Amino acid sequence: MNEKDVYENCVYKKNGSINIAKLKIRKLRWNIRASEMSRNTLNPIREIVDGMKLSPNPDKPMIALSIGDPTVFRNLPTDERVLQAMKDAIDSQQYNGYAPSVGYLQSREAVANFYSCPESPLEAKDVILTSGCSQAIELAISVLCNKENNILVPCPGFSLYKTLADSLGIQVKLYNLQPEQSWEINLQHLESLIDEKTTCLIVNNPSNPCGSVYSKDHLLQILSVASRHCIPILADEIYGDMVFPGCSFYSLGSLSGDVPILSCGGLAKRWLVPGWRMGWIIIHDRNQAFGTEIREGLVKLSQRILGACTIVQGALVDILNNTPDEFYCSTNNFLKVGIEIENFPEFKNDVDFTERLVTEQSVFCLPAMAFEYPNFFRIVVTVPEEVMVEACRRIQEFCQQHYRPCSPDGNDLDQ
Amino acid sequence: MNEKDVYENCVYKKNGSINIAKLKIRKLRWNIRASEMSRNTLNPIREIVDGMKLSPNPDKPMIALSIGDPTVFRNLPTDERVLQAMKDAIDSQQYNGYAPSVGYLQSREAVANFYSCPESPLEAKDVILTSGCSQAIELAISVLCNKENNILVPCPGFSLYKTLADSLGIQVKLYNLQPEQSWEINLQHLESLIDEKTTCLIVNNPSNPCGSVYSKDHLLQILSVASRHCIPILADEIYGDMVFPGCSFYSLGSLSGDVPILSCGGLAKRWLVPGWRMGWIIIHDRNQAFGTEIREGLVKLSQRILGACTIVQGALVDILNNTPDEFYCSTNNFLKVGIEIENFPEFKNDVDFTERLVTEQSVFCLPAMAFEYPNFFRIVVTVPEEVMVEACRRIQEFCQQHYRPCSPDGNDLDQ
Ligand SMILES: Cc1ncc(COP(=O)(O)O)c(C=O)c1O
Ligand SMILES: Cc1ncc(COP(=O)(O)O)c(C=O)c1O
Repeated sequence: MNEKDVYENCVYKKNGSINIAKLKIRKLRWNIRASEMSRNTLNPIREIVDGMKLSPNPDKPMIALSIGDPTVFRNLPTDERVLQAMKDAIDSQQYNGYAPSVGYLQSREAVANFYSCPESPLEAKDVILTSGCSQAIELAISVLCNKENNILVPCPGFSLYKTLADSLGIQVKLYNLQPEQSWEINLQHLESLIDEKTTCLIVNNPSNPCGSVYSKDHLLQILSVASRHCIPILADEIYGDMVFPGCSFYSLGSLSGDVPILSCGGLAKRWLVPGWRMGWIIIHDRNQAFGTEIREGLVKLSQRILGACTIVQGALVDILNNTPDEFYCSTNNFLKVGIEIENFPEFKNDVDFTERLVTEQSVFCLPAMAFEYPNFFRIVVTVPEEVMVEACRRIQEFCQQHYRPCSPDGNDLDQ
Repeated sequence: MNEKDVYENCVYKKNGSINIAKLKIRKLRWNIRASEMSRNTLNPIREIVDGMKLSPNPDKPMIALSIGDPTVFRNLPTDERVLQAMKDAIDSQQYNGYAPSVGYLQSREAVANFYSCPESPLEAKDVILTSGCSQAIELAISVLCNKENNILVPCPGFSLYKTLADSLGIQVKLYNLQPEQSWEINLQHLESLIDEKTTCLIVNNPSNPCGSVYSKDHLLQILSVASRHCIPILADEIYGDMVFPGCSFYSLGSLSGDVPILSCGGLAKRWLVPGWRMGWIIIHDRNQAFGTEIREGLVKLSQRILGACTIVQGALVDILNNTPDEFYCSTNNFLKVGIEIENFPEFKNDVDFTERLVTEQSVFCLPAMAFEYPNFFRIVVTVPEEVMVEACRRIQEFCQQHYRPCSPDGNDLDQ
């Protein structure tokens, strides 16, 4: 650190004339502190993963089932049409300049058409393009909440909601999902958290990390809570339509009677290109509850740093209109696995458990501490089948070696 | 607006037993307000341009010299190598997944190598990739300033600094540039604004909208003010190296002895692809004044919404290493034109002046009100030569028609 002398001019009168003296007033030194906002920004997935002590078993090649990036194993590439659309956008040389801060009109139109349905018709003006679904969520939270407000967030849930709210000084209230009821929302718990400072309910369906897809009935019940308390919904529908065959996905926008909804989505998951940072907000207003104020607020916020790369924006029309249906059938999903930690007395918690799983078996799963849900871990199932089989074999071996049932009568290794 | 009845459970004792009654407590209705942050986010360029009443002369095709997008006239395309680098990145299928939030290591390394110099050697760890220079500026301001702090911003200057600071609740103090001295900083004025709440000095060189390039001497003087008061510098050097032949550009990082600097840049201007949203922060620390705190703060902030599109990140190595030198010689710059408004009594101000210029001559220039600098306007000179000549001819005609010198002796149309 440098120390510095600082002088101040001191004007005084002496013998009738004005004099100036330099007075040493204090020692200055470099004292640069990171802002509160930066210190309050915590992304637990990155935090936990970076903080874990991992030393894989050198005899076993590492299998990472920890980070939800469908591209890392190369077995799930995006569609050829998607790549061609990008190259066409580059060749056209039409998409190098600045786009409007909310995105090109024709690209917003393409999103509107793609998601429009008779129950909730959409136009370009209802769509704002963003840099990934993350920025969509950031803008939606930022427009709906002031510092003194609170938002309702699922637990377990995707960590970004809390990361963003914390960094903006907005209070997070966690509502419980119920593992024994297909991870549906505990509606009573949800409703009990609402107060006059609640300005946003975040619903993530299909859910990360739970992999659950809510029924129409359950979604209608959620809407009825929001309607009763006049709370707008931020619907994180980035996994929309990514459901196992036989399941149906309903968007909240298609079901809402009077609850206004900001639906956040993007190319990341369904089109398997998370790095491209293409996201969007779809505005489903109802009875002018959002009115011009929320729309204008979103437009203003989009002017802070602008949104998505213009090449991806340019390609978007083609991607949404021409990706073949067969591609969409290659669905990917996320599983979640619970640890009966009391039966594994050697391990303190899920972080300890997953660390040792790496040390002994070189299989890396994400401790669900990252989702505020200790003693579970998440495994990603977008890996090639043979890798998955090997990973499961190793996890089984690990469990067999460390399982010590704590109940007096239970002693069955197959449990 | 929907009006709703709200009931509250009221527990009371009657005849010894506990009873519950539903009490109607108040009428609820949808009352969604846009947040303070969104209402405090004003981008005056977009605001002024969107708010102006423009009705071009139908007899003259429109010439827009208002928005600094070098791509709109198609006469200044980016280099073929830059486009090829993008297509190679797509074909490789290596860049579809998530990148680290600060960017791929090899891409950060490429930026470090490109800007490294003996006076300020750089490594990958000194570079953070962002979504455009705009996000670089946002992260730099966000890490250095809390709400109660103030930042020093050039006037006239690029409007984004104030837009971002206002939206974050950080006070802006405008320091004057001096038109009669090649738009150098009025250092005395600058220094007079510094107080104990000042945590960042923004220096934009080369300058938008002034087009000025500071001499080494002037930059050293600026550094000495920052050094005396221990204020870190945010150097907006997005136009770095874009100078007329014979001029030299010095980066603040290459000249700084003890002042730590966050230098913000990107591909937008020099590589003529502003829509691609590729920017970066280069950290020039000095004597650990930033230390780990600012570096870690920047990393945390980068995890909020992640940064640049991975395809552009993937192409970046090739773009920085292989763009031919001849390309860089096609320099573009910005001119600024003053209006002696007292000699144009018909017009209230620069907005009025530029609106009428559209109505009569179909030439659209940006009123410098957008840069807090009324009674100037900015014209963009990255247009094809014949367009520029025609625009100047029309501006001249317009001035001749409306010029009414107000000084008693001045009556010379050629002034
Ligand atoms: C539920 C959920 N929402 C949003 C996102 C962020 O998506 P993007 O990468 O487009 O920012 C993710 C990414 O994993 C997610 O799982
Ligand atoms: C001085 C200055 N800084 C920063 C920017 C923003 O650059 P980007 O488009 O990369 O966000 C601009 C764009 O016009 C600019 O003129």
